[in-house]
Formats: sequence, C-alpha cells, structure tokens
Amino acid sequence: MKKIAILGSTGSIGTQTLEIIAFHPDRFQVVALSAGQNIELLISQAKQFSPKLVSVATKQLADQVKLHLPSHITVVYGEEGLIEAAVHPAADIVVTAIVGSRGLPATLAAIEAGKTIALANKETLVTAGQLVMEKAARYNVPIIPVDSEHSALFQSLNGEQLKTVYKLVLTASGGSFRDRTRSELANVTIEDALRHPNWSMGAKITIDSATMVNKGLEVIEAHWLFGMPYEQIDVVIHPESIIHSMVEYDDSSIIAQLGNPDMRVPIQYALTYPERIESPAKRLNLTAIQQLTFREMDYTRFPCLQLAFECGKLGQSAPTVYNAANEIAVARFLNREVSFLDIERIIETVINDHNLMAITDAESILEVDTWARKYAAII
Amino acid sequence: MKKIAILGSTGSIGTQTLEIIAFHPDRFQVVALSAGQNIELLISQAKQFSPKLVSVATKQLADQVKLHLPSHITVVYGEEGLIEAAVHPAADIVVTAIVGSRGLPATLAAIEAGKTIALANKETLVTAGQLVMEKAARYNVPIIPVDSEHSALFQSLNGEQLKTVYKLVLTASGGSFRDRTRSELANVTIEDALRHPNWSMGAKITIDSATMVNKGLEVIEAHWLFGMPYEQIDVVIHPESIIHSMVEYDDSSIIAQLGNPDMRVPIQYALTYPERIESPAKRLNLTAIQQLTFREMDYTRFPCLQLAFECGKLGQSAPTVYNAANEIAVARFLNREVSFLDIERIIETVINDHNLMAITDAESILEVDTWARKYAAII
Repeated sequence: MKKIAILGSTGSIGTQTLEIIAFHPDRFQVVALSAGQNIELLISQAKQFSPKLVSVATKQLADQVKLHLPSHITVVYGEEGLIEAAVHPAADIVVTAIVGSRGLPATLAAIEAGKTIALANKETLVTAGQLVMEKAARYNVPIIPVDSEHSALFQSLNGEQLKTVYKLVLTASGGSFRDRTRSELANVTIEDALRHPNWSMGAKITIDSATMVNKGLEVIEAHWLFGMPYEQIDVVIHPESIIHSMVEYDDSSIIAQLGNPDMRVPIQYALTYPERIESPAKRLNLTAIQQLTFREMDYTRFPCLQLAFECGKLGQSAPTVYNAANEIAVARFLNREVSFLDIERIIETVINDHNLMAITDAESILEVDTWARKYAAII
Repeated sequence: MKKIAILGSTGSIGTQTLEIIAFHPDRFQVVALSAGQNIELLISQAKQFSPKLVSVATKQLADQVKLHLPSHITVVYGEEGLIEAAVHPAADIVVTAIVGSRGLPATLAAIEAGKTIALANKETLVTAGQLVMEKAARYNVPIIPVDSEHSALFQSLNGEQLKTVYKLVLTASGGSFRDRTRSELANVTIEDALRHPNWSMGAKITIDSATMVNKGLEVIEAHWLFGMPYEQIDVVIHPESIIHSMVEYDDSSIIAQLGNPDMRVPIQYALTYPERIESPAKRLNLTAIQQLTFREMDYTRFPCLQLAFECGKLGQSAPTVYNAANEIAVARFLNREVSFLDIERIIETVINDHNLMAITDAESILEVDTWARKYAAII
C-alpha cells in the first residue's frame, strides 16, 4: 500500500490522481490533500478518501472546512499548511500538482523529508532546477515526472544509459492556434485559446500550450530532469499527441512512448514506477487513428519557445524570470487586461531588461521571481 | 574486444554484420566465417577480416579457398565445418545468419558451447523453438534477436517486466504486393515479387514478405523468444517500416522502437547489447517523412499469416511443417516451377495432410521437416 500526499488536489492533475487512486483502492491510500480556494471539492475529496490531513489557502477557509469534516482529519492552512501536507510523516509519495512557482518551497520540504516526488509542477524545475536536483541527489530522492512528455522520456529511458542519448525529442501538439498565422493571433479571445485540440487541462497550461511557453518550460524541465544539454533537446510538432516524446540514441535507434492523450497514464506510472498495472485509460488503436504526422517546429511562429532555449542556455536567473514573467502575462490575459500577443511581448521585455544573476538558494530565486512579476504586471 | 563468428557471412545479414565490424575495428574481431557456395566473396572477406577459421559447403570448395588464403587460416567444410565455426573456442558471439532450417544444428551447438547467440535465422525458433529456448536457459546463453521487428520488441522491453506486457505488436510493411488484390496476384512474376518497397534483403525473405509468411514466422519467433501466448501477439500494417515494432503494456502505454529501415542497426545492437554506440546508419528525420500510417491486417488477403497463427497455436510439429513447406514452395516459385499463389496452396495442403506429432529432439524435427519438404516438392 503506497501512501500519497497530493499538493493541489482540486486541480486537473490532482483530480485525475484521485481517479487513479480510486481505481486501485488496494494499492494506494491518500494521507494528505492540499487545495487553494476550492473547498467544496476538497471537502468532498476528503469525505471520499479520508486523508489524515487537509490544507487550504487561509485560516478562514480552514475554519469552514472543519465544520464539514470529521474531527480526526487535521485541517491546516497557508504556506505552512501546504508544507505540513508535503512532509506528512505517513506519506511515501508526494504529488506536486500545484500550478506555478508557489510549488517550490513545498517540493523542497518534501525532498528534505525523503519523499518520492511525483513532479507535476514543471515550474519547480524551471525556476530552481539546480537547487531541486542537487537536493534530490543529496537526499537520494527519486523525482518521477508526471508531465506526459517527461513521463514518455522517462519511460523511453528505462533500462538505458543516459550517456548513450543522442537527443531527447519532445513532441508538441501545436496548441489551440497551431493552424493560425501570426497575424491571425492579434485578436484571439480567451475562449479561443482555451480550446485545446487534444488535452483537457487547466486554463494556465492551455494558454501556455498556445504560446508554446509550455513546451519551453518542458525543454528546461527536461534539461534538469535528465541532465541533458540544450543542444541535445529538440521539439517537433506532432498534432495528434499520440507519440508523447522520444529518445534518440547514439546508434540512431529511437525509443518512443505512445498512447491516447490521457494524463491518468503518466500519473499512474509515477505512482507505480517501476511497475506497470492496469489503468482506466482507453487503449490506443493505431489502425483507427490511421496516421501520425510530424512537422518541423517553426521558431519564428513560436518565438516564446526560442526564448526558452535562450534562457535555458543563459542559465542562472534567466529561466526563473522567463517563468515568472509568463505567469503574470497569462494571468493578465485571462483577466482580459492584455491581448494574446502581449504575452510574448511581456516575457521578452522582462527578460531583456533583466540583469542576469546567480541562483544560489530559495531566497535569491524569490528575489528574482518577485522583481520579474512586479515588472511583468506593469508593462 | 568482442570476438565474433558469423554463420552465413556472404548473405545479406552476413555482409552487413561485417560492415558493422569494419565500422568499429576497435570493438570487434572476426574469428570465424562460414559461407555456402559464394567462395569468391568469402575469400575477399577472409582477406579483409583475417578470421582464424572459414567454412564452406564442400571439400572441393574448401580446396579452392585454401589456394587463396594464408595458411594460418583453417579451412573446413560441410555440416561439420559449419559446426566448427559455430563452436570456435575464440568466439564470444555467434551470428546465425544462415537462411532456412539448415541453421538449427549449428545454433544448438553454439548454445552448448556457451556462445551468446545473435539470432538472424528465424527458422531456428520456428522449427525448434522449445528445444532452442530450453537449451539456451540450461546453458544460460542469451539469445539476442537480429530481425528488425524482434530487435524492436527486445529494445522496447528494456528495463520492463514481461509479465506486465499486454500485447506485442509486430509491424508489417505489407511487402511488394500490399496494394494488389488477390486476383491481381495470380500472374505476378519473380521480378515483381523481389521488389520490396522498404528493405533490401535476400530473395527468400523478400518472397516471404510478399506472402506474409515472413510475418507469420516472426509471430512464431516472437512467441518463443519472449514466451508470449499467441493471443498476446498482434500484427498491424505500417507501410513506411519506420516503427519496427511495439510493446503495449498493462497500463496502456506503448513503447516502440523507430528508425530508418536499415538492418545494420539491429545487427549492431545485437553485438553491443546492452550498450549502444554510434552506428553507420542514417538518422531518422520524422519531419521529412511527415507521416506514419497504419492499417488493420487483412487475414483474408494474407491467409498465410492466419495459417501461421493457427500452426503456432497447434504447436508440436505444426510450425516445423509450416516452415519446411514454405521453404520448398518459395524455392519452386523462384525456380519458375509454380506460381506465386501456389506458395500458399502448397503450404496449406502440406499442413492439412500432416499428422501432428510431438517434437522432442532434433531428430524428430528432422523427420517432420524431411516429410514436409518431400511432400511440398510434388504437390
């Protein structure tokens, strides 16, 4: 019986993680759940899965939650509450499914507490890749990716040696606007942007998918997760999202992981690794799909991806700034403050006006992150 | 330095094995070569690679070969000579690249001598799967497949557990006649049949590819190699031959191996396994290929494949008969004695008229094999 803590249980990854746990009641047990504002869903999750602890955003929300749960479930709140969930002594695996860089302190705390990390918060590695990977190595903690692309790479690396990798190839669906020209992007609406062709995901990641920032974050994440130089990471457009990513080896062989687009598969794999068990996902029928297509990535059409490679290669504080500027820009777009193309303008401006600095600890990250957010909010 | 013996060095797999060895002179050394009639090529190979021993079909050919080689190269001949090459004390790996069931005794001898087997002779496992796999287990000898499909499966199983396999999926190009109807097959010529769309191979395997017998043999080979029930082996048509085969796991994930159609890649992998090193093969460019397509296998269009599954499930002497009847039928077609569609008629008749019997040793295989060949030659 593996014991699971889920940080961000009411989001898209969180709810799908609970679906997997419900599908295998004999294998998994929930020990802690953390959410933000959505206490209605959290309460119903807590009633179904009986965790030992739940955490919410504020004291006020915690007081409300307490009224609805039996007294043996501890209710905590705030950043401290989130960390309590992350380090809960009963947990074996912590699923870090909080969106954005808020997930970092809890992830670091979980690593220090020796928990296996099922990493669904890609911003953690983007903003603090070196810090997180060094800490994971020091505490001998496995970081298992949940993102479908990184899970595909992780699975395609099974039984292989990293030193024989020639290239990691991330596939990109192209997002909701893949068939529009740049000039057609000027007036797209939030509603257009949220219509992703293949994956059902949260709002922020769907916008990131349309700007290709999501793929940029994934490139940086892959760099840290597998210790791979950016020169050995490639992106191809694969509209069907069936090949979730590939590893090309020195001998020219490519190993790929395929399946229907269903996040429950990589989530389950992160929980069962190195084992595989039956999943609730629909099996892939390639003869029904008939064809898989591939196009070269167009870095002029998707400048945010080019920028991610550049920030990744610059290193130090550049990826943190890239991620922070994007978070604010997307929030402003979702808030109807700025247009879709303003997202890339904001990121580019913040990066250009930033003075590169070394990232040595969580404090220096916070400093850079705060500066970038403040600046991204006003330009 | 790995020391290699090649049985069938002048054939398609044999010559490509020597290309790989020549590409990595620091890694591999040839210790024995065996050929049949093509002594001109064998002599030139022996001069280039300086083996300790060469073997040819007859004493007469051996005498001729001796005239052209330095005296420190031992020249042997016949079935005994072939076995001498297979058990040469200096060899670590024996590449069994002889076409047809003649490869069996030498393969068994190599296993008993403790050699790692790079198996390119699929008829060995088809006619004597149980015998070979039991012997390999007893002598603790790895059997590493060279066939591109089985190498793809083998690679896709790296680091995984066989018990979590849901299905092995062999891909089939469809062969030279994949776009013709059955009625269009009545008058096809040898020349038509030898034009394979993707792979450059020997004549027998190219015909086997057009009748889909080749895929049938591969299904039976996969059954033995991976101990997989026939119910868990599937075939899909994939005309581009880029995905060389796939493994579907219990969790619905599919792991696949991809590459340009180039036998040198699986040959090299069999020699370097579990390592991977640079190969002379051209790297795959999926965005240049643009699309991969898949169609359901049509067992009415390709009855020989259906028959292979049936023989496999029957077990005992049935696969031996299937293979022997096919070898003779193909030889008769290549000899312009019978038509293309007669190949399947001959196989079917021989199987229908055969009395199933147990396969207990090499002698019982030989008996069944001889009966099937004689009968296939006259119907």
